[in-house]
Parts: sequence; C-alpha cells; structure tokens
Amino acid sequence: MRDSSRVSVVKVEETQSQRVDDDVVIEEPLEIRVNGDSLSVTMRTPGDDFDLAVGLLWTEGIIRSRDEIGTIAYCPDEEQPELKNIVNVVLVDTTRKIESSRRLWSNSSCGLCGKATLESIHQVCQPVASSIVISRELLFSLPSRLRQAQANFERTGGIHAVGLFDEQGSLLVLREDIGRHNAVDKVLGAALVGGLPVSETIMMVSGRLGFEIAQKALVAGIPVVASISAASSLAIELANDLGMTTIGFLRGRSMNVYSHPERIAAGGITA
Amino acid sequence: MRDSSRVSVVKVEETQSQRVDDDVVIEEPLEIRVNGDSLSVTMRTPGDDFDLAVGLLWTEGIIRSRDEIGTIAYCPDEEQPELKNIVNVVLVDTTRKIESSRRLWSNSSCGLCGKATLESIHQVCQPVASSIVISRELLFSLPSRLRQAQANFERTGGIHAVGLFDEQGSLLVLREDIGRHNAVDKVLGAALVGGLPVSETIMMVSGRLGFEIAQKALVAGIPVVASISAASSLAIELANDLGMTTIGFLRGRSMNVYSHPERIAAGGITA
Repeated sequence: MRDSSRVSVVKVEETQSQRVDDDVVIEEPLEIRVNGDSLSVTMRTPGDDFDLAVGLLWTEGIIRSRDEIGTIAYCPDEEQPELKNIVNVVLVDTTRKIESSRRLWSNSSCGLCGKATLESIHQVCQPVASSIVISRELLFSLPSRLRQAQANFERTGGIHAVGLFDEQGSLLVLREDIGRHNAVDKVLGAALVGGLPVSETIMMVSGRLGFEIAQKALVAGIPVVASISAASSLAIELANDLGMTTIGFLRGRSMNVYSHPERIAAGGITA
Repeated sequence: MRDSSRVSVVKVEETQSQRVDDDVVIEEPLEIRVNGDSLSVTMRTPGDDFDLAVGLLWTEGIIRSRDEIGTIAYCPDEEQPELKNIVNVVLVDTTRKIESSRRLWSNSSCGLCGKATLESIHQVCQPVASSIVISRELLFSLPSRLRQAQANFERTGGIHAVGLFDEQGSLLVLREDIGRHNAVDKVLGAALVGGLPVSETIMMVSGRLGFEIAQKALVAGIPVVASISAASSLAIELANDLGMTTIGFLRGRSMNVYSHPERIAAGGITA
C-alpha cells in the first residue's frame, strides 16, 4: 500500500524559490472493529493494517494470544469501495462484546475515510480569513526565536514547544508539553482567554504538522502554521481546502511551503 | 508547576559509564471535566492546565468564544488532595451536557493520577521475565540498523520507525507509521501473529519513549526499549517498577540507561 504521496510544494532557499514535486507521508483514518463493533478510529499511515489492528487489541489488553483471533478482513465502504479504511477482527469467540468504556477514539472529528474527515472539518471550520503578510526573513528567524524562549527543552530534550507570533515576529504566547497536540491546545486556550487576535498570527510548532495540529489551527482560525519538521498528506489537503498557509522543514534559511504561499511576501515566491 | 523531574540515570559513553542525576520531562494524566462531567483524560506535562482545558474545548468545537466560559478550577482528589490532575470547566450555560459520542479518551488505561495509572498497569502487566543480555556495541549499532532498514524516512522525513531486534542484533520486524504508537502496535501485532519470541528482543523506537510506548511494550513483555530521543517520567517509573530496561538518547556511541541496566553486559556498567 502507498505510504507516501506526491504533492506540489514551493521550495524556498535563501532568496530563491521554485515549485517542485515532493513526497509527504500519507495520513488517513483507520476504523478498527472487533466482531463487527467499532472499537477505535486512529489516524495512521496505510500499510500493515492487520498488524496494527492485532497490535492494538493486544496492547489494550483485549486479546492475550494469537489463538484468540479468528479472521481479519477489510470491510468494504459502500460509498467508496476502493478504500481500505475499516478492518474487522473476528475473534474465535464471535459473541464477545468489548465493553463501551474501552472504546477508543483518537479524535472525535475522525471520519471513516479521508474524504469524510475533510467533509466533517468543512462543517466545523470557516475558510481562514486573514490579511497577514509575512516576509521570508521573519519566517527564517522563527525557529531560533522559539528556541530562545523555550525554557525546558535544553534541560530535558523531551518537550514540544508551540509559539504564536505576530506579523512583526514578536512572541505573543509560548507553551510547552510532552504532547504536541497539548502544546497547541495550551497556546490556543491562552489566546482565547487573553483575547489575542489569532487571525493575524503565525503558529510555530516544534514537531510535525499532522492532521490534528492542522485541524486545531483551522478551528481557531490561524492563517499560517510553520513547523521545523514534515507535514502530512491530510494536513496539507485540509490546509489547501480551507486557505491556511502551511510550512515545513523550516530550518536554517530554507523551508517548504505546502499550501497558500501567497501570504509570504518579498522575493517573489513562485506560485 | 514542575515540568521536569530529576531521575538517577546511568550515562554511557564509549566504554565509560557513570550514574548521574538527569532531568526528564514530567508526564501525568489530566482529566478535563465540563460542568462536572468527564470529557477527556489526556497525558500531559503539568502546567498551564487551564489553558489546556480551554484550548481543548475550543479546538474540539465545544465552545466558540471565551464568553461561554464561567469558571475554571481544579477539583480536589479526595484520596490525594495534593494532586492537581482534574480540571473542571463550568460553562456559563451550567446545564449543558456534552453528548457522550464526543467523549475523548486518550488511552483507556489512564487513571486520574500517576499513581492510579501505575496501579492499573500493574493489574494488566506481569513483571518482565527475560534472560536477554546485550552488549553496548550492539546497542550503539541499533540506530543505523534501523535507519538502513527504513524504506520511507529518507523520502518523506515524516514517518516513525519501530524495529524489533534479537540478542544478536538481527532485525526481526520493522514497521513504520506517522504515529509512534501505531508503529509500535504494528510491530507487536506482527510479532504476535508471527509467533516471535518477544521476551528475548529489543525494541528500538525512532521517537520519544513516553508512557504509551512503555505501556504497550510492557503488555507485550518486551524486556528492553531503546530510543534515539528522550524518555518521560512516567515511562521510567513504570519501567522501573516492572523490570523493563529503558534507554534514551541512543546516538553515536553514547546513551542514557534509565531503568534496569543489569541487562547490558560488558564494560561493567556502574549501577
């Protein structure tokens, strides 16, 4: 199964920029069912889905040996039969029900396929409305600004940081957490309580830019999300659809712009 | 609030080793309640918990503005009143109930405090039983063995890899995924289906060694987990209690051993 997808990206280096094709990791929801009942929806990279289902059942304590497994199969999605995003594990004990308190939902907004997920987001989010325009120089400076403000990373090496910057590159709020999505929630919670003008800000994340990060930024109306690491296929698709600028591999004096480069001024980015 | 914790660690460099104190990032569960009803339990780094609660409510679409928030407070845990691991957000609309389909459970094994979490794991997991003994040289070689076998990282730069190695350093199974916990589940699922002797293996993860990774490895009975990145306080505590060797910052010819160094032979590791 495919685990990477080719996307068109604006590669920026110093004062140069060009549109090239690049590989990004595929992220899609997988629903795992046990004896036909939904157990979990998780965002995953397609491939080895049966292993993933068995592993989750094992590590969540639902099965203890392979002898408990009867059959494993993909369930056809009636509307999109080409999709392999539902796996049903039939146990040897076909009557067994997994109690509802053990249901796992990785994210309440997950659908059963990328398309359903994107559609559900469209219902929740408005397209991004922002007049922010930022320079390359300002973007290149964000990683060091974030690092300088980050109190804990140097000590533990194990914590994510997320910062919200204004159009001039001033840091408005910084939060840290072992979980990337928690750090984003902390920043956005502080912004909401403090009445910050999020629609004119840039969010800089120390980790990768996956679906959940993009979704949270879109709900809040953040116009630009930049990451020092990679972006996922679903995050880029979502950002393209809803008008959010996404930037990855922001390191040194280069970056990849995955969506809506029009907010980046100066130097004439080739769109 | 504290966000890092001091632990005793065996620092190994080349043929030297010494026991020193080191800072690790704190990971603890937080339960978020809305109008007194439990909404979510998430593993987080303590600090800015009210921001985290507000941000989660916002980014999950439960509130749309700060005007909907009435009060935010910690709920005392009757058994452990010093803990601040439950936050209750009372909305202006105090009668509002969040429908159960929107309940978020980050992990079904989470308790309401670190202690409860650890206790629930003790009920599920046996202490690790393994006779595996590994050399430093073998450990130092694992990151490059994993990288060489990893098909996708070089192309997308955005995918995690987890490998299971035997006592001689042979790769038994490798799986990749955008999610660290998915990659672990895929590896363990493949091991269970394939009947691999997991109790005599080393699991090498490309990302950080947090609670969920440690928990999954312990359920499966993996004796040694190594990471190129940091370990969390709760992962280390769990591993210490249940006899699993954990190794972090395995890079070049050095590493930190956080728990049970007795499985590492040769060179006389100072315990």
